[in-house]
Amino acid sequence: MAEINAVQKKVGYLGPRGTFSEEIALSFYRGVEGSFTPYHSISSVIMAVDAGEVIEGIVPVENSLEGTVNVTLDTLAHEANLFIVKEMVKPIRHNLIAKPDTKHINVICSHAQALAQCRHFLDQHYPNTERIEVESTAAAAYKVASGAKNYAAIGSVRSAEIYGLEVLDQNIQDNPNNVTRFLVLSKAPANTSECKAKTSIVCQINGEKAGALYNILGEFAKRNVNLTKIESRPSRGGIGVYVFFFDIEGSWEDENVAAAINAVKAGSIWFKNLGSYPIHTVE
Amino acid sequence: MAEINAVQKKVGYLGPRGTFSEEIALSFYRGVEGSFTPYHSISSVIMAVDAGEVIEGIVPVENSLEGTVNVTLDTLAHEANLFIVKEMVKPIRHNLIAKPDTKHINVICSHAQALAQCRHFLDQHYPNTERIEVESTAAAAYKVASGAKNYAAIGSVRSAEIYGLEVLDQNIQDNPNNVTRFLVLSKAPANTSECKAKTSIVCQINGEKAGALYNILGEFAKRNVNLTKIESRPSRGGIGVYVFFFDIEGSWEDENVAAAINAVKAGSIWFKNLGSYPIHTVE
Repeated sequence: MAEINAVQKKVGYLGPRGTFSEEIALSFYRGVEGSFTPYHSISSVIMAVDAGEVIEGIVPVENSLEGTVNVTLDTLAHEANLFIVKEMVKPIRHNLIAKPDTKHINVICSHAQALAQCRHFLDQHYPNTERIEVESTAAAAYKVASGAKNYAAIGSVRSAEIYGLEVLDQNIQDNPNNVTRFLVLSKAPANTSECKAKTSIVCQINGEKAGALYNILGEFAKRNVNLTKIESRPSRGGIGVYVFFFDIEGSWEDENVAAAINAVKAGSIWFKNLGSYPIHTVE
Repeated sequence: MAEINAVQKKVGYLGPRGTFSEEIALSFYRGVEGSFTPYHSISSVIMAVDAGEVIEGIVPVENSLEGTVNVTLDTLAHEANLFIVKEMVKPIRHNLIAKPDTKHINVICSHAQALAQCRHFLDQHYPNTERIEVESTAAAAYKVASGAKNYAAIGSVRSAEIYGLEVLDQNIQDNPNNVTRFLVLSKAPANTSECKAKTSIVCQINGEKAGALYNILGEFAKRNVNLTKIESRPSRGGIGVYVFFFDIEGSWEDENVAAAINAVKAGSIWFKNLGSYPIHTVE
């Protein structure tokens, strides 16, 4: 039994060390023994869960300013067969960090979304400084720490600590309403019988026009089932052909939710259940 | 009058030279005298039109594989006051290009969407080669041409010609259904009385739940007005609060279209007309 417990704690996250995904892993699994493995991309985290290398994987799915992390939805829809087992919402605070005693900054590097989320700060204070996109905020901190001269990174206070960097400016994000939703993914569905839950599905509706989506939304509306999000993504079959992701309040175990989803499934030419899962907020 | 004509031909596009946006500009305005100005980012093209630096601006808005170009929609919604005056759809063909006689490739650079659109090709043929994101496919070609050793770029045949590079592999995109929609933007709306047209609007619906969107879609459905696209984007007011972009078949000059849009406007707490415009396909 000890071995099964150990296996259950193998968690993959979007690395390297110091990412917000790692912070989520550490705060959520606090006090739990286990191994935490960083992966170099979101799709590699998801495919590692799919391949059984790790039991759970943590990836970002949506930011309140920049919107959906497309690769997360696309990989869940088209490449992996997994369930969402938890959702976690975390406030994001960005900082400008550099090596101690950096006098002049020629280049600021970070993940594309972090650069975008600090655009007004950068335009105001560093209008002529080159901006370079790297895979993650932590990769940016690593790049700065490993020797790039006159570089600064945008990242978390934790990534500055890990890589021996100094925080030059704190909380530099343009908008205070900056939170990110993370998903925990697994091959087995979650148990939602005793908690507040959401359910996610993805489908390609039979018909491409407004009327088809209208009818699908009617299945939810007439059963008083609330949607928290609708997202269309390319089906990869040509422009104008979409799959729709629905985030639904409630669980498959709720009679109305199950009835609405079954009606949607009946009206779809392709359908995938991404699971029911509890929701958490992490500070 | 001659001067007015010259002014009307000032066009901005996402540069540098050799981007797909420039190809669109050159093929669409073939035979028209005027000035074509490259800008370094999508938002700077849009804001140049808004500021009157150029009369029309050309930007990508959606790719059939990667989905919406978020910055285009966000800038149109929140920062500029412009009309879409044309839509153009262009097939995208990616190529691996490098300096003549390049023997070994250590780094492949391109725009993030181009790298994503060639992911399977790269995973198969260059699994261990570093991939670097730059601002555009043409910036990648320029980077390779201007001296980065052992670099290759993903870009168009035209960008290889412009920068004196060699095409190593042609048509390396993973999916043959790879087309991109471009928008031409202007301060004055288009005349759509004699052509097949679409209309775009963006609004924040009064109410956040499924029922509100359902009712809005009903305004279109009951008048037999077809939607070609619905896209939700963050309103920037917190997670779970969205604005919706609707692409509608037909023009404001069509009675049913105007009636449906006016009903949507009445049910919105914020609304913006992005114009009616003719649609074109470019080879």
